Amino acid sequence: VTEDLAGFADFARELADSARRETLARWREAGDVRNKAENGFDPVTAADVGSERVMRSLIEARFPDHGIVGEEFEDRPANGRWTWSLDPLDGTRAFICGMPTWVTLIALLADGAPVLGVIDAPRVDERYIGFEVEATLTDQHGTHSLRTSACTRIADARLSTTDPYLFAGAEADAFERVRRTIRTARYGHDGYAYARLAAGSIDLVIESGLAPHDINALIPVVRAAGGVTGDWSGRNDLGRGRIIAAATPTLFEEAVELLAFPVGS
Amino acid sequence: VTEDLAGFADFARELADSARRETLARWREAGDVRNKAENGFDPVTAADVGSERVMRSLIEARFPDHGIVGEEFEDRPANGRWTWSLDPLDGTRAFICGMPTWVTLIALLADGAPVLGVIDAPRVDERYIGFEVEATLTDQHGTHSLRTSACTRIADARLSTTDPYLFAGAEADAFERVRRTIRTARYGHDGYAYARLAAGSIDLVIESGLAPHDINALIPVVRAAGGVTGDWSGRNDLGRGRIIAAATPTLFEEAVELLAFPVGS
Repeated sequence: VTEDLAGFADFARELADSARRETLARWREAGDVRNKAENGFDPVTAADVGSERVMRSLIEARFPDHGIVGEEFEDRPANGRWTWSLDPLDGTRAFICGMPTWVTLIALLADGAPVLGVIDAPRVDERYIGFEVEATLTDQHGTHSLRTSACTRIADARLSTTDPYLFAGAEADAFERVRRTIRTARYGHDGYAYARLAAGSIDLVIESGLAPHDINALIPVVRAAGGVTGDWSGRNDLGRGRIIAAATPTLFEEAVELLAFPVGS
Repeated sequence: VTEDLAGFADFARELADSARRETLARWREAGDVRNKAENGFDPVTAADVGSERVMRSLIEARFPDHGIVGEEFEDRPANGRWTWSLDPLDGTRAFICGMPTWVTLIALLADGAPVLGVIDAPRVDERYIGFEVEATLTDQHGTHSLRTSACTRIADARLSTTDPYLFAGAEADAFERVRRTIRTARYGHDGYAYARLAAGSIDLVIESGLAPHDINALIPVVRAAGGVTGDWSGRNDLGRGRIIAAATPTLFEEAVELLAFPVGS
């Protein structure tokens, strides 16, 4: 499996390269559009669809037996154990607002479980890849091995979540307990927050309502860098999209404890 | 004055270049530190102090009569009308969290009023400069003229503010009215949000509690790109640090109306 994964990682880099060409072309177009008209949505849609289409074509040509699940088109069932999970443009709100941390998410699933993840951030030219026990960042300075921070206390943690106003009811109360405890927080970074967690500059990410294509690529990157992922109750049931990613097991347990809310909510 | 300002703009670019060398060196150092230890603060302090020191040296050598107000050292009084306002690293929380939109802010004040502003974003290699009626962005693709968006309705607006949890009491209620009305919001971008407002991808920025060195550089950039800046009551009294920057005069007036809160709070 290791040899397979190294080969699939090379192929995933090709996918990310092809997706970048689509998204970066639309990013600049959006920049031009923004200076002319009140119409920032079309380039986003074009970037989303164009990026997923080009990745699907490459997968279908190279691995016709592999399945594909993506955001923009219908699922393609696998003939065998391998399926690709694609989120061509995670962070569309950042993209629309001209903020640079939008990403493309690519994951390879083995029998449904994510075993290889790519978080590619084209505008800042950073590519995070994780599988098995190695996560790396490739940027303008080369390729570096990644390791999560040593943070073990919520009070010291640098937290990230995409939208603090998305939590409702008991979830909102639980998040508020965490927010009042942590050292500092940054919002609105979508999948890029998990990349920075793998790189050691964010310690904790807490989110809710994520879809599988939002999550699949993040897990192998975070785990290969030494981090921990799971649901809000400390298990591994991400079906409700309630995810915690933490730099260390101790920090993960602390977050689970602080987030605990009444059974059934 | 126009010729003076064009010359001062060239000098401000030199200041920004020298500040970049300091901050980018510490940014990479922080990256290395982040992978080794739970100690992300020292590089930030070093970047702050180093960057302001080098800019001060250049100003003192070239314009010994000019005043300097900065974040890290004592004010240097002007002998004449010109004073430089420096914020060597705006967005230290972003810097600490490994997020790329931290900036260096440089302004030139004439008799206390900002007439030239630079918002320099080293990690993304974007430099925004505004004075009189022209604002430009210089990036890897060249130098482009900037124009704010045509947005005139709060309901269509892309909002940014640095920390939605910093507002308290009546301010928090007022901000909440805006937040529930706008199209989308991004948080945590400090001075970079105003740069993107000038560039047309953010329509509205609302903040409170800003210091003069946070504000001075932003105003000439936003105004030269066609935007409007003022306080929450629609006037120009930024002494309490309550600022609105808007893409159009109509949007500015709408924001003032929605933010209005009881006299005396």
